[in-house]
Amino acid sequence: MIKIAIDAMGGDFAPEQQVKGCILAIKNIADIELTLYGDETEIRKYLTDDTRINIVQSDGVIDMGEKDPIAAIRNNRKSSMALALSSVRSKENSAIVSSGATQALIAGAHILVGRLKQMKRTAIAPLIPTINGSNTILLDAGGNLEIKPEYMVQQAHFAQVYSKEVLGVKNPRLGLLNIGTEPGKGRQLDKDVFNLFTDNEKINFIGNVESKEILDPPCDILISDGFTANMVMKTIAGTAKGMGKMLKSELKQGFFGKLGMLLSARNLKRFKQKLNPEEIGGAMIYGLKGVVVKAQGSSTDIGFYNAIKTAATIVRQDVLEKVKNILESDVL
Amino acid sequence: MIKIAIDAMGGDFAPEQQVKGCILAIKNIADIELTLYGDETEIRKYLTDDTRINIVQSDGVIDMGEKDPIAAIRNNRKSSMALALSSVRSKENSAIVSSGATQALIAGAHILVGRLKQMKRTAIAPLIPTINGSNTILLDAGGNLEIKPEYMVQQAHFAQVYSKEVLGVKNPRLGLLNIGTEPGKGRQLDKDVFNLFTDNEKINFIGNVESKEILDPPCDILISDGFTANMVMKTIAGTAKGMGKMLKSELKQGFFGKLGMLLSARNLKRFKQKLNPEEIGGAMIYGLKGVVVKAQGSSTDIGFYNAIKTAATIVRQDVLEKVKNILESDVL
Repeated sequence: MIKIAIDAMGGDFAPEQQVKGCILAIKNIADIELTLYGDETEIRKYLTDDTRINIVQSDGVIDMGEKDPIAAIRNNRKSSMALALSSVRSKENSAIVSSGATQALIAGAHILVGRLKQMKRTAIAPLIPTINGSNTILLDAGGNLEIKPEYMVQQAHFAQVYSKEVLGVKNPRLGLLNIGTEPGKGRQLDKDVFNLFTDNEKINFIGNVESKEILDPPCDILISDGFTANMVMKTIAGTAKGMGKMLKSELKQGFFGKLGMLLSARNLKRFKQKLNPEEIGGAMIYGLKGVVVKAQGSSTDIGFYNAIKTAATIVRQDVLEKVKNILESDVL
Repeated sequence: MIKIAIDAMGGDFAPEQQVKGCILAIKNIADIELTLYGDETEIRKYLTDDTRINIVQSDGVIDMGEKDPIAAIRNNRKSSMALALSSVRSKENSAIVSSGATQALIAGAHILVGRLKQMKRTAIAPLIPTINGSNTILLDAGGNLEIKPEYMVQQAHFAQVYSKEVLGVKNPRLGLLNIGTEPGKGRQLDKDVFNLFTDNEKINFIGNVESKEILDPPCDILISDGFTANMVMKTIAGTAKGMGKMLKSELKQGFFGKLGMLLSARNLKRFKQKLNPEEIGGAMIYGLKGVVVKAQGSSTDIGFYNAIKTAATIVRQDVLEKVKNILESDVL
């Protein structure tokens, strides 16, 4: 049995959607057992079946808009997020899934789970959809706004293992997000890391990739510093949202337009589905001593279920051990 | 008469689309006179009417994929781009429009037109569409990958004048592209420039803006360093392109889907139009002693015409003088 800790109280629609996501997960994944950390009375409201589900009472919640995440964790050691994280450190559980505040989860994971000694910086790695239906790993959407090139090499190794073991890509290709494709493009950081990637035999580096190929990239992993990747991720979201609004307002113009939109309704819905981050599953935080998966703050049951599925796969494939082996054998 | 120099040979479809764009401009803008620099024989093939149009023979073209733009300009002083730029320096013309290679145009403008002494770095400022139909100025999509905060203040002043005089915005609002809205977010550069903007009475600064609001921003100008803004611009393009492909393949599924798409054809076309950079007009290069407008490399006649219209407006509104006055009165 793969034992997974659930932060039942974190998220915009917690605990309802989290609990429903857990029920979906138990139904669909045979080898998992879940421990939900949260308010038992609240959780029981939505828990129609507690097969392979345990509940541990928590006290206090980390606010979604938390301004000082480190203090929030320190002052809320009995919160659902803190208890769930601690249970991974103590090996009671092999993974944690949370849709709580991202910065609090990262800070909490550092304090309560601990960083792998082989990785100098943690990274958060969401998946972005591509036009052919596969997903690209985007690094780093986390907190390393200014980072050293050698730390990006460690993140690249991690992403390669993840891509292979969790996403099933045979020989994952890494691309450096840059403003031009030629070698030598970009800032000093980009030039330096380009050279490190090129010289590293264990990295399948294809060179610079421009963000105009963001939904149809020639690689499986896209890497940049935390500021840039975060900016790119939010630009994709903003463009998709803006285009969706424009499309809707244009499509319903005129009689034929309205009729056409009616007939296209099912296809338009499927289109929206394709771009839905809920379908993709959570983002793993790379570089920790345990498996920490962040689900979207706005997760509904499906999104949360997908994040649990991701966590189970990471544990089943023994991703952390494989990453450690590669990092230890890679002398920088 | 506003005299405008045209680089007739620069661009993916030059000189045909450039010449046709000039004809459109002459028809629609009464107070302009155009001088086309290029191969006269080639130009005459498409020039059905030469009212208010002059031709100056050039020799050599700056290649669109030019790797060393400075050398390209230095070694091609008789090229259409170089001759057109020089005619602005010598005041024969008040502006130049080119859809030639961006980096060559920026380098050529530095060498042949010269930088304003009040601005330490030039910037290229494209317009991006918003969902309500207006346009946002995005700074800097040019070459300043690593820039000092005080130079960004100069660019902000320029953008405010441009927004007011060329785009007709009464009291243009400036937003700093950042990964969060709270003050104190971002890299050291972002924190420093945030403070400079806040302290500057002549800048109508609204604070940090996240890129998830990129097509519906709460401001008229969005600013960041050249690396970030370039990345954001290309991410918008890549997402729009990818979404367009996904939409098309989803919409045509099934019988009702095909019928619906047929009925929606006109509206879908208008949707594409809205996102078409051709409709927006060129991007001015800020910080030069003359008016230099870059049209898209892939410009067709409409796109090139819109860039000429932009150049004429910049000259008519005396943008450069107004910028100089503000920069001189703003003691940093």
